[in-house]
Amino acid sequence: MTTAPRETGRSRPIVALSGGVGAARFLRGLVRVAPPEDVVAIVNTGDDREFYGVHVAPDLDIVTYTLAGQVNESLGYGLEGDRFEIVDTLDKLGHPAWFRLGDRDFAHCLHRTLRLKAGAGLAEIADELRRTLGAVPRILPMSEDPCPTLVDLVDGRRMHFEDYMIREGAPDAVASVDLGAAQVARPAPGVLEAIAQARAIVVCPSNPVVSIGPILAVPGIAEAIAKSPAPVVAVSPIVGGAPVKGPASQLLRGIGVEVSALGVARHYQPWIDGYVFDQRDAELESEIKALGLETRVTDSMMVSPDAAARLAAATLELAESEA
Amino acid sequence: MTTAPRETGRSRPIVALSGGVGAARFLRGLVRVAPPEDVVAIVNTGDDREFYGVHVAPDLDIVTYTLAGQVNESLGYGLEGDRFEIVDTLDKLGHPAWFRLGDRDFAHCLHRTLRLKAGAGLAEIADELRRTLGAVPRILPMSEDPCPTLVDLVDGRRMHFEDYMIREGAPDAVASVDLGAAQVARPAPGVLEAIAQARAIVVCPSNPVVSIGPILAVPGIAEAIAKSPAPVVAVSPIVGGAPVKGPASQLLRGIGVEVSALGVARHYQPWIDGYVFDQRDAELESEIKALGLETRVTDSMMVSPDAAARLAAATLELAESEA
Repeated sequence: MTTAPRETGRSRPIVALSGGVGAARFLRGLVRVAPPEDVVAIVNTGDDREFYGVHVAPDLDIVTYTLAGQVNESLGYGLEGDRFEIVDTLDKLGHPAWFRLGDRDFAHCLHRTLRLKAGAGLAEIADELRRTLGAVPRILPMSEDPCPTLVDLVDGRRMHFEDYMIREGAPDAVASVDLGAAQVARPAPGVLEAIAQARAIVVCPSNPVVSIGPILAVPGIAEAIAKSPAPVVAVSPIVGGAPVKGPASQLLRGIGVEVSALGVARHYQPWIDGYVFDQRDAELESEIKALGLETRVTDSMMVSPDAAARLAAATLELAESEA
Repeated sequence: MTTAPRETGRSRPIVALSGGVGAARFLRGLVRVAPPEDVVAIVNTGDDREFYGVHVAPDLDIVTYTLAGQVNESLGYGLEGDRFEIVDTLDKLGHPAWFRLGDRDFAHCLHRTLRLKAGAGLAEIADELRRTLGAVPRILPMSEDPCPTLVDLVDGRRMHFEDYMIREGAPDAVASVDLGAAQVARPAPGVLEAIAQARAIVVCPSNPVVSIGPILAVPGIAEAIAKSPAPVVAVSPIVGGAPVKGPASQLLRGIGVEVSALGVARHYQPWIDGYVFDQRDAELESEIKALGLETRVTDSMMVSPDAAARLAAATLELAESEA
């Protein structure tokens, strides 16, 4: 930390481990309080799946669309003003069309598919999309290898995360989450380098199980974080005992983690230095500190870009105080 | 002909050999003067090509869209009111986007691609599309095998017909047309049966070289037509010494056929019985009759659905007079 030469400090990246909507909103705040070109998002690809013949990468695309200022704000995913001619037409022709991919969104996934067929890597393609759409921070997939996250339900059914999440509506009865594919994947080009060079590593307020979990499961990534001299600060995705959005409760319970800011802090404790959580959970501070973590208690509800920027600023301050 | 039992006459089909725009307009006329459920279009698939990762079948789709009343009238192809988000987005991302496929049009081609991957045949898929879109006549691909029509230019370049036609703008310098793929293809399910049962076989006013040529090149189709007792009547695609639309001149010259109603009549003479052509070419009638063909001289410019219906009526009358 303190051994890094100060004069090159500005170009050392802020690395953000990132899932989908929550991470995207946090990153939009982060680029308002740090130079956007210094930010590198390492994004979960455990949600990636083929739909309608194209490679859909939900988390990469949400992050890209949000940082490019083109996300559909009301849906929280997809592109503002996008249409749904493709899925509606496929629906009429008898295809399962529960995954509501917009037309331009589809075209981006088609670009990804065509480029993959032509031999390009997922990282290179993610960079093409973010440049064309106009997002400044670097956006890296955690891996270029297929890393499908599988969910096992207590009734014995096993399914891809998107099937669990969207088709099934995230039912409660999760037995376990299988990150086996990520556990044998290789980090994408640039991932380990970014972590090694980081001046701070931020864990976005994303699902610990199916967003942050897969990133850490990729061999080499957790090791690189442990080796990095940069402070590692996580933002709790749990506020007042419930996730801000998404199926974190079901999934945390599924892996035996208490659904609270404290539960997630315990889950992350082995590899983080600091923890940012909401004032609604202030009574947990002493227990979280007792884990050996530095803390910041703040308003962590990102109800606006300003609120997200304040949360990001608190997170960066905590990181800097540890650097 | 006269040996066919009269009592089953109504259910014996009118088979139409069909290319794209010209055929589609003619067929729209035909279904106004004959029971639509009696019409079977056997459609050229030599123009089929993969674009943007999907199987595009231009002639099948033009015919389907036109008979379903959904064609973009001003373009002559594609769907009325369709948008172009997919190709425009791909264009921005650096893909060649000279083939202007609309979004819903794309979705139909995506359906075709997904169904082909799932093991369905092109004929079955064409039927799914025409039923969903609401076209009554049966629409059969000439073959389910890949039959790309290749064009050789005098400068030595060889290209797929769509590249010649759309990307290159149909240049004059055609050395020859290669129907080699069609020459080793199998007729699609239903094609030979429809011809064998036909009460009339109509050759739509389509390009003789690249629309009708590929259909006849598929082994078994010309033989089935020759064996059929039904009268075979062709409609000239040449009016006043020029094609109504498309690159027929370049291509006819490329295979050594005179660009005139007479030239096409000579080209078709070995296998047709009757020939319908435009009043602007009335002075050619004695020469066409001298080929041994029955003739009808009429207004063959399909400037409206009514005009197309009149042309179709004249064509059916000629066929019936020969039956």
